Amino acid sequence: MISSLISSHRPTLPPEVTIRDVGPRDGLQPEEPVSVADRIRLIEALVEAGLKRIEAVAFVSPTAVPAMAGAGEVLAGLTRDPSVRYTALVPNLRGAELALSAGVDELTVTISFSPTYNQRNVKMTVEESETVISGIVEVADSCGVPVDAVVSCSFGSPYEGNADPPEVVALAQRLADRGVTAMTFADTTGMATPRRIHDLVDALETHFADRSRNGQGPADAWMQDVGLHLHDTRGTALANALAALERGITRFDTAIGGLGGSPFAHGAGGNLATETLVATLDDMGVRSGVDVHALVAAAALVEDLVGRPVPSGVAHHGPRQGHQA
Amino acid sequence: MISSLISSHRPTLPPEVTIRDVGPRDGLQPEEPVSVADRIRLIEALVEAGLKRIEAVAFVSPTAVPAMAGAGEVLAGLTRDPSVRYTALVPNLRGAELALSAGVDELTVTISFSPTYNQRNVKMTVEESETVISGIVEVADSCGVPVDAVVSCSFGSPYEGNADPPEVVALAQRLADRGVTAMTFADTTGMATPRRIHDLVDALETHFADRSRNGQGPADAWMQDVGLHLHDTRGTALANALAALERGITRFDTAIGGLGGSPFAHGAGGNLATETLVATLDDMGVRSGVDVHALVAAAALVEDLVGRPVPSGVAHHGPRQGHQA
Repeated sequence: MISSLISSHRPTLPPEVTIRDVGPRDGLQPEEPVSVADRIRLIEALVEAGLKRIEAVAFVSPTAVPAMAGAGEVLAGLTRDPSVRYTALVPNLRGAELALSAGVDELTVTISFSPTYNQRNVKMTVEESETVISGIVEVADSCGVPVDAVVSCSFGSPYEGNADPPEVVALAQRLADRGVTAMTFADTTGMATPRRIHDLVDALETHFADRSRNGQGPADAWMQDVGLHLHDTRGTALANALAALERGITRFDTAIGGLGGSPFAHGAGGNLATETLVATLDDMGVRSGVDVHALVAAAALVEDLVGRPVPSGVAHHGPRQGHQA
Repeated sequence: MISSLISSHRPTLPPEVTIRDVGPRDGLQPEEPVSVADRIRLIEALVEAGLKRIEAVAFVSPTAVPAMAGAGEVLAGLTRDPSVRYTALVPNLRGAELALSAGVDELTVTISFSPTYNQRNVKMTVEESETVISGIVEVADSCGVPVDAVVSCSFGSPYEGNADPPEVVALAQRLADRGVTAMTFADTTGMATPRRIHDLVDALETHFADRSRNGQGPADAWMQDVGLHLHDTRGTALANALAALERGITRFDTAIGGLGGSPFAHGAGGNLATETLVATLDDMGVRSGVDVHALVAAAALVEDLVGRPVPSGVAHHGPRQGHQA
């Protein structure tokens, strides 16, 4: 049926988006270790495809996360493209110092809105993580390197249930007050839906409007750099990204091939696949600067590296072919 | 980033939708044959979950489609719930007569907007298929049974590329003129994107407005019964459904578990999974009358029947748990 109650407007979309491919980090992290040389090949394939932001490595304990060992070697082995921002995830000050020595262009730090998740993930309270981030920002600042805080469980967690959007925004503001210059809200466990995306954007808009009214706006760099990091656990990642896009969010973390879920469970859902988002944006006329056919080739490389098919449909079927100019 | 160019409105949604589960037909059709008893179990599980419309069988050649053999036995063996509309797909007059004898509540007929696809699928031109549908409508009418035309390749085909929305609508109107009372636009090969959904809804609105202006509106039953049949080949099915919902489309074909793709290819993408749509609608406060937990149980039954995991994330992870009332 077509409901006559509905006003018939196609949404207005932003003209372009920024995509950060996190496949080499969030994608490969749960996999069997891939060689440094192959990780470099993958990163360079992503650069070749046109990606300008890539989460390339994590400076974490190789004992805890064997797949991320050799971060320094990966960065040293890359032929760096000066137009690309190479990012490293760092969990602590030591990791930040290593990453900065290796010459990364950006740091990502994670903190969870869920106290239980944070405790399980990094064995710290949320407040302790905030303090760690302060220290990281300080050393990064001294090198002129920006820090993006990835707020995991921004849409809820299996432990505490729904996340209250104003409280998520309040955590982000506390991080901004500590010097974080970009904020990425992450749907770590697939709890986001378009409704929850709208709820968070509502809370962001209210918060930003309040700050502007109080003359605090210009100090808030993060207001200009809000992104989403979406997982496809429940099949909602693309719908969530498009809902966010319709509300003006224009930065997205994605992973080539949709890597990042459990390698063993069907339907486990990794990150939103870069090629799925780009194919959809291409069809809607939203520029990403990324070539979808090169992404399909990179996804095939990923399959070689991890030794099994990736979950993305676009990787296997290619983008839709309209046969038009 | 949050683009200041974007007006910040959350879309208005219809209060409720109608879902037709096509799993027992479109879902099981490409699979190894499942017994009549098990197909009945599946249909009854879907009824138990609250589905009021189910594409239960196809009256097609058992030689051509072994998985659909025994349609009459399935219908005869069901404990029919009078509140449920049991549908049969029929390819020709003979199939329609068998289905009507078996007491179905609705017939679906398929015709492709793509001449090449139609030729390959049913070895007829589109015009020949229109004539066949005329004959089917005539016998169905004499039994008071409605006929829904499923227009495949409504968003394009691999053969001819994009489908021109006004031409798709013109085909639908020709079918309506032949007595079809409901129209379901199908994305057979995963060519739909939210942009293409909006394009088709635009064309429908223009067409309906023109008909109304000319006083032809009241004769057009199908204007009140437009649905979408979406496949997840390229990961866009849920996003497409939600775009359509935002434009007032409130009837959807889905398949339990996301069945319906190739059983052999990863990421092949069957139908939009019923549980994925229902979980998302539940979270947005849009009523479907279907219980998502019962769907998850039915998806587990599907996995038993087909002997492998279904592609749906909700089937494996359950719906999001907000812990709220």
